[in-house]
Amino acid sequence: MKFEVIKKSSKSHARAGKLYTNHGVIETPVFMPVGTQGTVKTLTPHMLHEINVQIILANTYHLALRPGKDLLKEKGGLHNFINWPKPILTDSGGFQVFSLSKMRHITEEGVIFRSHINGDKHLFTPESVVDLQLAFNSDIQMPLDICSPYPCTKEDAIKDLDQTVRWAKRAKDEWEKRHTGQMLFGIVQGSYYKDLREKAVEMMTELDLPGYSIGGMVPIGQINEISGFTAQLLPENKPRYLMGVGLPENLVQNIADGLDMFDCVIPTRLARHGQFFTKTGRGNIRKAEHRSNDESLEKGCACYACKNFSKSYIHHLFKANEILALTLLSYHNVYFLVNFVQNIREKILSGEF
Amino acid sequence: MKFEVIKKSSKSHARAGKLYTNHGVIETPVFMPVGTQGTVKTLTPHMLHEINVQIILANTYHLALRPGKDLLKEKGGLHNFINWPKPILTDSGGFQVFSLSKMRHITEEGVIFRSHINGDKHLFTPESVVDLQLAFNSDIQMPLDICSPYPCTKEDAIKDLDQTVRWAKRAKDEWEKRHTGQMLFGIVQGSYYKDLREKAVEMMTELDLPGYSIGGMVPIGQINEISGFTAQLLPENKPRYLMGVGLPENLVQNIADGLDMFDCVIPTRLARHGQFFTKTGRGNIRKAEHRSNDESLEKGCACYACKNFSKSYIHHLFKANEILALTLLSYHNVYFLVNFVQNIREKILSGEF
Repeated sequence: MKFEVIKKSSKSHARAGKLYTNHGVIETPVFMPVGTQGTVKTLTPHMLHEINVQIILANTYHLALRPGKDLLKEKGGLHNFINWPKPILTDSGGFQVFSLSKMRHITEEGVIFRSHINGDKHLFTPESVVDLQLAFNSDIQMPLDICSPYPCTKEDAIKDLDQTVRWAKRAKDEWEKRHTGQMLFGIVQGSYYKDLREKAVEMMTELDLPGYSIGGMVPIGQINEISGFTAQLLPENKPRYLMGVGLPENLVQNIADGLDMFDCVIPTRLARHGQFFTKTGRGNIRKAEHRSNDESLEKGCACYACKNFSKSYIHHLFKANEILALTLLSYHNVYFLVNFVQNIREKILSGEF
Repeated sequence: MKFEVIKKSSKSHARAGKLYTNHGVIETPVFMPVGTQGTVKTLTPHMLHEINVQIILANTYHLALRPGKDLLKEKGGLHNFINWPKPILTDSGGFQVFSLSKMRHITEEGVIFRSHINGDKHLFTPESVVDLQLAFNSDIQMPLDICSPYPCTKEDAIKDLDQTVRWAKRAKDEWEKRHTGQMLFGIVQGSYYKDLREKAVEMMTELDLPGYSIGGMVPIGQINEISGFTAQLLPENKPRYLMGVGLPENLVQNIADGLDMFDCVIPTRLARHGQFFTKTGRGNIRKAEHRSNDESLEKGCACYACKNFSKSYIHHLFKANEILALTLLSYHNVYFLVNFVQNIREKILSGEF
């Protein structure tokens, strides 16, 4: 058994579970910080351990381009290379091919694109993407998919979805031949069309994969509706992963809708813009009101940044362009989200959610 | 007693000592990492503690401009503000006024300059610089001085030196009225003229200050000669601080010449260029030869970077413009220099130096 639901909420679809991977057990619901290039920006692995990060996400597109599959394979995979012994999830690279690369051309075989780094031509196929992630030794891998842009006509959304499903079948075949405990999740696309989401779930669950994720470009205002609707169609006994979502204001609803896993670049990206999470909303350390403020970023927060430094000092560091500002804000933001979800888990377990 | 020599080398002028400050005892010889704006670039105070950094240096010029004296005074000084409970040395700001500011005008009263940040006009006087450093609560402060440029005629060097001595007297008067245990060191100038260095030592030691430093712009090839010559003229019972010097290749000679304290931006600055120290010379992590290298930056090094990460990974991080590369290289370089000097101290104590 790879996943078990250990407690269900009586008032919502929320559940607490355990996901068993090659690199340990993940307690769900869980927030997964993003380490695009094999590092969660500005933080050391030591800090991630302190924060009790259970699993990080890395990007197949970026790692395939640099340092490349051969090097990561030679190093025995990503865990060894980056010295992170806990679970790693890698995305399929599909999203980045469509958002970052200079050129892309989709065929039945796969997608040809040019690297955003040096313009080199590359081909991703469902098989090569599985192969890449096996070289990374990712605990959870994603199959090559097409993330329909927004807005998107229904015809295009259908086309993208059908392609995604055909690719998922090929990915599964490749993975089944070769995996040694790594999991392959299915990605449910279908844009903002509920009937397509329903169809996608049907086709994807036929593949009987170890877990399912919900992807796609959906306007912020519709994310909760689409993801909530889709989550309830997914099998109860498999983990459900909402890709790219991680705002505190959404997470409560998403977990109530029965979603288990979340990733987002937002905690480290916001840090680079001076922003930090608090229970009452976001703050911005650049603001003059923090110049002389002796309080921590969040009152009562037990993270390294809050236990040791005032907003006044971090304001100074940010104004002075010191990297320590980014490190402290990133530390706090990742800590905030990881613990935000962890606290919800505890409430699910105690029946208070 | 503020300083004691606890062991002298029989084969050189080297000595091991203890310097007692308001924030603890510093074991000398000592390397002091530079935290210009109240942070040693890319490192957390936690990391500095791990490295056993005994004292950090901060820059009066930068801190006076941002966040400013009033804020630092309000926060109870620099230690509180940056959460660094160990000793802090601040320079006089003189060097930065001459190297960074857009305009400067020296009068008997002091030096008028424009901020490199926003062009605002400021005046540093010997008294105001003491006042600033008392607001910072620096354990060791430096008096306003003139660091003669290189090259420099003897006439100009004499003029700068005389001005420096007159200012030092005024600084001492101000400091004597107001200090509560913070130390004021005298700065020996005189450029690359040995007779001027001799004269500077004579005049400066007349002030009977708690310690003496050797400053000035001297060509790299002459630093050891000038500093060694000057060090031996300075009183035995006072700490001797060689300002801005911290290359491993020089430190052995400088310590053999009887110098006790060193600071340099080089470990963190080199890190930003990909460079790292080893016992056999400097390496550069950008080089292709490190791309697949499983070894640590320095074989056998016990620092966090070396115990946990390969050159291959740090090469990748550097190429990918990830901040963690700078943090790991800075960590290693600071660790290297701090321990390099600490090891020399142990050899002095055991009579093996």
